[in-house]
Amino acid sequence: MRIGAVEAGGTKFVCGIGNEFGSIEERISFPTEQPDVTLPKVIDFFKDKQVEAIGIGTFGPINIDRSSDQYGHVTTTPKPGWSGFDFLGTMKRAIDVPYGWDTDVNAAAYGESMWGAAQNLDSCVYYTIGTGIGAGVLAEGRLVHGLVHPEAGHIMVRKHPDDTFEGFCPYHGDCLEGVAAGPAIEKRWKQKAYELPEDHPAWQMEAYYISQAVISAILMLSPKKIILGGGVMKQQQLFPLIHEEVKKGLNGYVGADAVVKHIDQYIVPPGLGDNAGLCGALALGLAALSEHRDK
Amino acid sequence: MRIGAVEAGGTKFVCGIGNEFGSIEERISFPTEQPDVTLPKVIDFFKDKQVEAIGIGTFGPINIDRSSDQYGHVTTTPKPGWSGFDFLGTMKRAIDVPYGWDTDVNAAAYGESMWGAAQNLDSCVYYTIGTGIGAGVLAEGRLVHGLVHPEAGHIMVRKHPDDTFEGFCPYHGDCLEGVAAGPAIEKRWKQKAYELPEDHPAWQMEAYYISQAVISAILMLSPKKIILGGGVMKQQQLFPLIHEEVKKGLNGYVGADAVVKHIDQYIVPPGLGDNAGLCGALALGLAALSEHRDK
Ligand SMILES: Nc1ncnc2c1ncn2[C@@H]1O[C@H](COP(=O)(O)OP(=O)(O)O)[C@@H](O)[C@H]1O
Ligand SMILES: Nc1ncnc2c1ncn2[C@@H]1O[C@H](COP(=O)(O)OP(=O)(O)O)[C@@H](O)[C@H]1O
Ligand SMILES: [Zn+2]
Ligand SMILES: [Zn+2]
Repeated sequence: MRIGAVEAGGTKFVCGIGNEFGSIEERISFPTEQPDVTLPKVIDFFKDKQVEAIGIGTFGPINIDRSSDQYGHVTTTPKPGWSGFDFLGTMKRAIDVPYGWDTDVNAAAYGESMWGAAQNLDSCVYYTIGTGIGAGVLAEGRLVHGLVHPEAGHIMVRKHPDDTFEGFCPYHGDCLEGVAAGPAIEKRWKQKAYELPEDHPAWQMEAYYISQAVISAILMLSPKKIILGGGVMKQQQLFPLIHEEVKKGLNGYVGADAVVKHIDQYIVPPGLGDNAGLCGALALGLAALSEHRDK
Repeated sequence: MRIGAVEAGGTKFVCGIGNEFGSIEERISFPTEQPDVTLPKVIDFFKDKQVEAIGIGTFGPINIDRSSDQYGHVTTTPKPGWSGFDFLGTMKRAIDVPYGWDTDVNAAAYGESMWGAAQNLDSCVYYTIGTGIGAGVLAEGRLVHGLVHPEAGHIMVRKHPDDTFEGFCPYHGDCLEGVAAGPAIEKRWKQKAYELPEDHPAWQMEAYYISQAVISAILMLSPKKIILGGGVMKQQQLFPLIHEEVKKGLNGYVGADAVVKHIDQYIVPPGLGDNAGLCGALALGLAALSEHRDK
């Protein structure tokens, strides 16, 4: 089986061909430019590859309402050329196969539930903590949409008592993304995040903030696994700090063994590593194909 | 069609008989005592009523994991006699019909989606703000469970700048429930909540806290409707205050028309009024029956 996968990020696009076992056989990657430059490259890659379906996991916000005539469009983004762009339609007109279409983070959550850290589980939350913060949600075996899609990066957080940084979110200042995404770390400590030493106080503060996101997810959704990915989470020392902060924050309220006894297996890095996004797009493509066959 | 419904609350039980159109034809109500006093009353009520199925929406926490041998039990509650009690099994042994089983708030969310404020929608969040705070979640047409079930009443909130009350949650002090449930209002203002005048500053502060719950729901789940019920929400003047606070908090970040233009139709009281819980239990019973027939 040959399925196409597109991981459409704000800074780079990755396209790949994979199979039903989640392995990626071939891939290319290029920087994200305007759609009229970038989409032809995507289409070129897939043109003669004989894929049976394509899955797209993309930066957003996007329209994922199948009943809308804007379904498949990128909605309001400051990215030049992308606001209102008919991403899915442009792909469909060039290559006529079934398509899966969702956010990059929902794709990653789905991929992790197929082949990664949440394998065989019907619920998980996938957070990416990088240039921004976003979350994908799988609940009762389904990716969660609704009015739009979750935007869990912008929840309100309690300020760390030692934090004097005002936050950089243009909407909220010191929301989660405003104080805990990569750029916040760099603005606060005036140093590249990846250059901060492992025992720098930045990481304790970061764990304090990320734990609030995790606690919200536990209380609002009760997922069976919480996966933390993205550039900032390359700092592996964050995991034990986050485990501690989550326990402290919940203070015994959630009695599930996963939280009380096995939190190190409950809040984990992506099982698919840096492939979470691309494998997720592959999983979306597979799902689109089987949905198409059921019809 | 005759379906049984049990709304099992911490202070009172309501049992009813209803039909597939959501109307309740007969009901009784009695105070919640120990299970060996209360369950016989429930069983007596249904015994000769010839119901085809029974739905139970109950106070929790409860075990809702079908693969567990504790499925249908009440788990850890301080309520005398109820901790570990096999609620569902006791019912089944007495009256052998298909059963629906979920939390009171999930039941209410489901009932509202069948016949109430979220009719024809595949997602909604139902908050009850009363003696405690809890939430039921419907996403992608399904009630959300997971590790356990959502416990959204205990999210961390930002303290109102004028609030000196330390909160009464035994686990977290000033979590949402700790500062915004009925008993918090009464402890803070040293007056019964229902006696506070409509223009008392208590309500502005209450709206500030409830809006944080609503914002969390919007960002984490993006539901198509948010329903606010429970004793405290009898204060109808809270709704416009909450609408304002939610808009202020989101600050334009979520561009959906429901939030921007029609927030008064987005964050609403239960369409079923005080029947949300009992109708929800009825809806659970109906779903159990149709699931049973599909088998
Ligand atoms: N090894 C690292 N340690 C800490 N922070 C990192 C590391 N690598 C990248 N980052 C931070 O992550 C952000 C980039 O996130 P990433 O997930 O790689 O990409 P994006 O979010 O743009 O898709 C940058 O702001 C950078 O500060
Ligand atoms: N009309 C009212 N106005 C404000 N608060 C009320 C009103 N009625 C009840 N309450 C508050 O709601 C709480 C009871 O909540 P309720 O939803 O009726 O029951 P429970 O949560 O126990 O099922 C009490 O703490 C009381 O202070
Ligand atoms: Zn923000
Ligand atoms: Zn609490």
